[in-house]
Amino acid sequence: MIKVGIVGGTGYTGVELLRLLAQHPEVEVEAITSRSEAGMRVGDMYPNLRGHYDTLAFSEPDPRRLGACDAVFFATPHGVAHALAGELLAQGTRVIDLSADFRLRDAEVWAEWYGQPHGAPALLDEAVYGLPEMHRERIRRARLIAVPGCYPTAVQLGLLPLLEAGLIDTEHVIADCKSGVTGAGRGAKVPSLLAEASESMKAYGAGGHRHLPEIRQGLGDAAGGAVGLTFVPHLTPMIRGIHATLYGRLKSEPGDLQALFEQRFADEPFVDVMPAGSHPETRSVKGANVCRLAVHRPAGGDTVVVLSVIDNLVKGASGQAVQNLNIMFGFAENAGLAAPALMP
Amino acid sequence: MIKVGIVGGTGYTGVELLRLLAQHPEVEVEAITSRSEAGMRVGDMYPNLRGHYDTLAFSEPDPRRLGACDAVFFATPHGVAHALAGELLAQGTRVIDLSADFRLRDAEVWAEWYGQPHGAPALLDEAVYGLPEMHRERIRRARLIAVPGCYPTAVQLGLLPLLEAGLIDTEHVIADCKSGVTGAGRGAKVPSLLAEASESMKAYGAGGHRHLPEIRQGLGDAAGGAVGLTFVPHLTPMIRGIHATLYGRLKSEPGDLQALFEQRFADEPFVDVMPAGSHPETRSVKGANVCRLAVHRPAGGDTVVVLSVIDNLVKGASGQAVQNLNIMFGFAENAGLAAPALMP
Amino acid sequence: MIKVGIVGGTGYTGVELLRLLAQHPEVEVEAITSRSEAGMRVGDMYPNLRGHYDTLAFSEPDPRRLGACDAVFFATPHGVAHALAGELLAQGTRVIDLSADFRLRDAEVWAEWYGQPHGAPALLDEAVYGLPEMHRERIRRARLIAVPGCYPTAVQLGLLPLLEAGLIDTEHVIADCKSGVTGAGRGAKVPSLLAEASESMKAYGAGGHRHLPEIRQGLGDAAGGAVGLTFVPHLTPMIRGIHATLYGRLKSEPGDLQALFEQRFADEPFVDVMPAGSHPETRSVKGANVCRLAVHRPAGGDTVVVLSVIDNLVKGASGQAVQNLNIMFGFAENAGLAAPALMP
Amino acid sequence: MIKVGIVGGTGYTGVELLRLLAQHPEVEVEAITSRSEAGMRVGDMYPNLRGHYDTLAFSEPDPRRLGACDAVFFATPHGVAHALAGELLAQGTRVIDLSADFRLRDAEVWAEWYGQPHGAPALLDEAVYGLPEMHRERIRRARLIAVPGCYPTAVQLGLLPLLEAGLIDTEHVIADCKSGVTGAGRGAKVPSLLAEASESMKAYGAGGHRHLPEIRQGLGDAAGGAVGLTFVPHLTPMIRGIHATLYGRLKSEPGDLQALFEQRFADEPFVDVMPAGSHPETRSVKGANVCRLAVHRPAGGDTVVVLSVIDNLVKGASGQAVQNLNIMFGFAENAGLAAPALMP
Repeated sequence: MIKVGIVGGTGYTGVELLRLLAQHPEVEVEAITSRSEAGMRVGDMYPNLRGHYDTLAFSEPDPRRLGACDAVFFATPHGVAHALAGELLAQGTRVIDLSADFRLRDAEVWAEWYGQPHGAPALLDEAVYGLPEMHRERIRRARLIAVPGCYPTAVQLGLLPLLEAGLIDTEHVIADCKSGVTGAGRGAKVPSLLAEASESMKAYGAGGHRHLPEIRQGLGDAAGGAVGLTFVPHLTPMIRGIHATLYGRLKSEPGDLQALFEQRFADEPFVDVMPAGSHPETRSVKGANVCRLAVHRPAGGDTVVVLSVIDNLVKGASGQAVQNLNIMFGFAENAGLAAPALMP
Repeated sequence: MIKVGIVGGTGYTGVELLRLLAQHPEVEVEAITSRSEAGMRVGDMYPNLRGHYDTLAFSEPDPRRLGACDAVFFATPHGVAHALAGELLAQGTRVIDLSADFRLRDAEVWAEWYGQPHGAPALLDEAVYGLPEMHRERIRRARLIAVPGCYPTAVQLGLLPLLEAGLIDTEHVIADCKSGVTGAGRGAKVPSLLAEASESMKAYGAGGHRHLPEIRQGLGDAAGGAVGLTFVPHLTPMIRGIHATLYGRLKSEPGDLQALFEQRFADEPFVDVMPAGSHPETRSVKGANVCRLAVHRPAGGDTVVVLSVIDNLVKGASGQAVQNLNIMFGFAENAGLAAPALMP
Repeated sequence: MIKVGIVGGTGYTGVELLRLLAQHPEVEVEAITSRSEAGMRVGDMYPNLRGHYDTLAFSEPDPRRLGACDAVFFATPHGVAHALAGELLAQGTRVIDLSADFRLRDAEVWAEWYGQPHGAPALLDEAVYGLPEMHRERIRRARLIAVPGCYPTAVQLGLLPLLEAGLIDTEHVIADCKSGVTGAGRGAKVPSLLAEASESMKAYGAGGHRHLPEIRQGLGDAAGGAVGLTFVPHLTPMIRGIHATLYGRLKSEPGDLQALFEQRFADEPFVDVMPAGSHPETRSVKGANVCRLAVHRPAGGDTVVVLSVIDNLVKGASGQAVQNLNIMFGFAENAGLAAPALMP
Repeated sequence: MIKVGIVGGTGYTGVELLRLLAQHPEVEVEAITSRSEAGMRVGDMYPNLRGHYDTLAFSEPDPRRLGACDAVFFATPHGVAHALAGELLAQGTRVIDLSADFRLRDAEVWAEWYGQPHGAPALLDEAVYGLPEMHRERIRRARLIAVPGCYPTAVQLGLLPLLEAGLIDTEHVIADCKSGVTGAGRGAKVPSLLAEASESMKAYGAGGHRHLPEIRQGLGDAAGGAVGLTFVPHLTPMIRGIHATLYGRLKSEPGDLQALFEQRFADEPFVDVMPAGSHPETRSVKGANVCRLAVHRPAGGDTVVVLSVIDNLVKGASGQAVQNLNIMFGFAENAGLAAPALMP
């Protein structure tokens, strides 16, 4: 049994951590912080947690109390983990950051996309990008994890087999992504109102989205060189889920794409390559830490289409964070993550 | 570890049983039957179950194979359990019927509402109405359980404290109920299409709904006499959830209604009386075997309003069925039912 | 052709006025005000209006410019019309107020429910409650209209026939109402987010809602005496629509209720009494200025159930405002209001 | 005033024709046919039409009665118009077919994709593809119109400027399309249930969809040669709307793309090129006969992204059919099509 803390627990990734950890046999939540809601019990804010955390209340962030935890999750806006991570690491606490603070290796690129200087560049060297399907061994030894973003998870898992095998033109990859509205967080913004966002579909950020450099970095690692990516995210009228539709141009006859994908993920507990011809639905992963993939080659042509679905709050955030924790602490990788998706 | 069978597993209550039992530490699903889908693996029909039941496939109903199970769930249309239950009981298998087949004690009333003769009147005497909050001790010893309907569960739990205490006029009770569309089952009917049922609200069955005699029977048991109930169900554009709004007229000063409710359900693991002034949301029980209640007395007048929410597929069907199983077999009552609701 | 102004045009009732008036053959929108969005063209805020009002932009409220209009609509939070209405009336401009400012005849009651003193009590005497089905003749001659609220419209139209005929017990009337989320306005509030409000149902204001005194006042007028009403509104996961389910207790044999309703509304262009046994759907009035009603008497008992549906933004707000305008200015009552509902 | 008939009026495109024609000043609906619902009044099937077509009822298809109309719309499954169109044309009735029967010029290709021989190849020569933005002059003189499909309309309008100007590589065009569920029609199919299709997103037909040859034919006309298109449609949890996200690779510096689009559609009443940087929402065209477009060139690279939205039932079907009628009969092109979209 280890003790964990959660910094910034009032948002959707915070409450999702609580939901998952309530079922985790090896973890006790010692502290959850929120400046705005300090003193409120978690069950009063999130009634689904009534009966699960009856004494746990939001508290002011206290580095000493957090430092007494074995691990601390950051479920905060960008910039917050920069300030606190070093202090916690110094106390021997491992840090699992769900924000974007440590995802980009290059502090300059980070500063450019986030509009402020990077607050902890000295930590970048040891931060490990927490995509277990690429970096499981490094995660095992890590003290500081940057949990991948939701779009980056769906896109990278769908493209890894093709890029690692060198099958597609790396200059012109397209990721057309559709996300449920929890991807925009719990902030009270007019465009996120049910009256505005339901019964509608729209693209956003077509000119450039903050997940773009993160995805490019990851795809570049897989490809062994720069990848030219066009990434268009869309807002979809549903609560959870990302559907990434990925297009690549084959450079030559690729062989058996289905087998390539199945072999690449054969040992992965949370990647499910569906049978040939499948079209995964986002609801098939609702609440579950799973990425389901299908690979198509329409009319046998030179375009390959990969369909990749995740729950943005689970495999795209809190579930992947718990998966990283499990790897770091030697727990069963599916501890707390074993429940099937909620369907229908 | 016990072995269970599921008859009629392709509908929503069937797949929900599989979802819940996947997390049950004491249960193995030995067989799941479907005439129409025999041979298909459950993960091919319900991809959320991929990785959880990889060898389980739908099979033709085989009384011998089912009779070798410790318990069998019926997740079937009405009439099916009538035919099979006796044969299974004779083999020593306990039967938990999620359909309406054994809910009404009076075979004549059943025949009137369901438009066909009752197929197993001899079993009615020993069938136990599986609402643990009323009949836990009888459930413990039962061989045959009639799992309550979804509306009946929400309505009865909300009215029990008032009726048992004799506080309200039993001649004029009103239950205005709102249900998500899974309450209508998985049949392909035009009114259940997304294009028809979303962005709309409507009542149905205002002249009389099959759950009416069941609710009246249960309320009558609690009140110790006949209860005059007006029950109007409504279709709500959501997948899961029932919200029952219950109106009763107080016969005299009722004392502390909040305390009455809290005391009535103090020992109930799956009934949550919320703080005074609360308005429970159906999403706070999505996927969870919980009924959340709040009691109001507007402007201190003589009308009491109870708000009662459940997930129609869990506490209103499959979760309650598992709860009954747990009680019958002496398992922890929350085995397989411990996960918090999925929120948001 | 008359000229109209709209004060406070950025909310949902404002844009809905623009949508309806775009089709009105006798009306030109001269000015639309918004302090926060002054200078922005309406089509930039509401792209559905692109091509319909290409030169119209939001402007600072200017009493002189508004006073040059034949009529001015207020689509503002409460309190705003109090301050401006008198000034406009003095200039000969007629005022149609969609807010609550002039709905209650008693300034004290208003002050109690809205938490501030009434700002224009001297105008209350001449304000006419703009429910054409009750006050058409007075509307014709009115200078100042208080457009009824959304819930009050649905509830009053459903109960008028029963109360006017003296058929039901006036002490115990119940209105269980379900509203789409636009009823909560366009404010950026967390509970109105798609991620919070969809896939869920909840009551709110069970202890008392601001529409309660307005409904009671109107029902009292119809009944010729005080009416005891329990009113519980619910939030429903849809954009538009109100479904009011109304329960009354019959005092004696009521005769033919269907005929009573049909006769009461025989000459009403915007009230549709559906055939006996019907269950009106809110989507059947989406975008249309119609109230559809059905009356039921379950099992021939002493409880009468009326189902009443409107679009909260049309017959419950902006459409009804235009209907009032049409009556006041002698236009065809359905001018600008002739389009069928959008279904599906 | 002309008389029109509608064959196959019970589906979504049929009811949408009735909704639009109710507002058309020059058209009277003389007959609407349905074998399955003959005798039922349209208002009984579609209550939104109550009060608009009170005497109109579905009737058995009667070629003589239809032949007495000035124009007949087919809102039927494929194959039906093949059989009847010739007979109506021979009587001097013009035919506007919303089905796929006359969209492909090559009867062989049609037979391949629709799995049956083409039933009226002799009519293909005179059939005009009813996309006014390409073929307005031919439509004016046409007797037989093939109304474009929903996806083809959104995709072609978005790509026409680029292809006509020869700016993009025609071998590798990608159309990632998202559609609301009415695109699948009103058939009672399990995947279209609210319980199945809401809160989820999925691709379908990635291996080949019937709209593919139609789109290729139209793009080829614009490009003056074959176009290699990858087309992946997706099902989105909303009632109406198509969002097409279109990707092309620029062959050279394209000049001012925004100006190109604005000029191409400057005289088009139903194509709205939004300001640079815009992201059109499908809800901005809900119920309206409009296509809104935006063109992006992310990071100034060689990929151009066009965002194109329509209402699949209006500009993607029934509205476009009425627009064709208006052109054929010399009515104002926006007759019956003038109302703004319903937003929110």
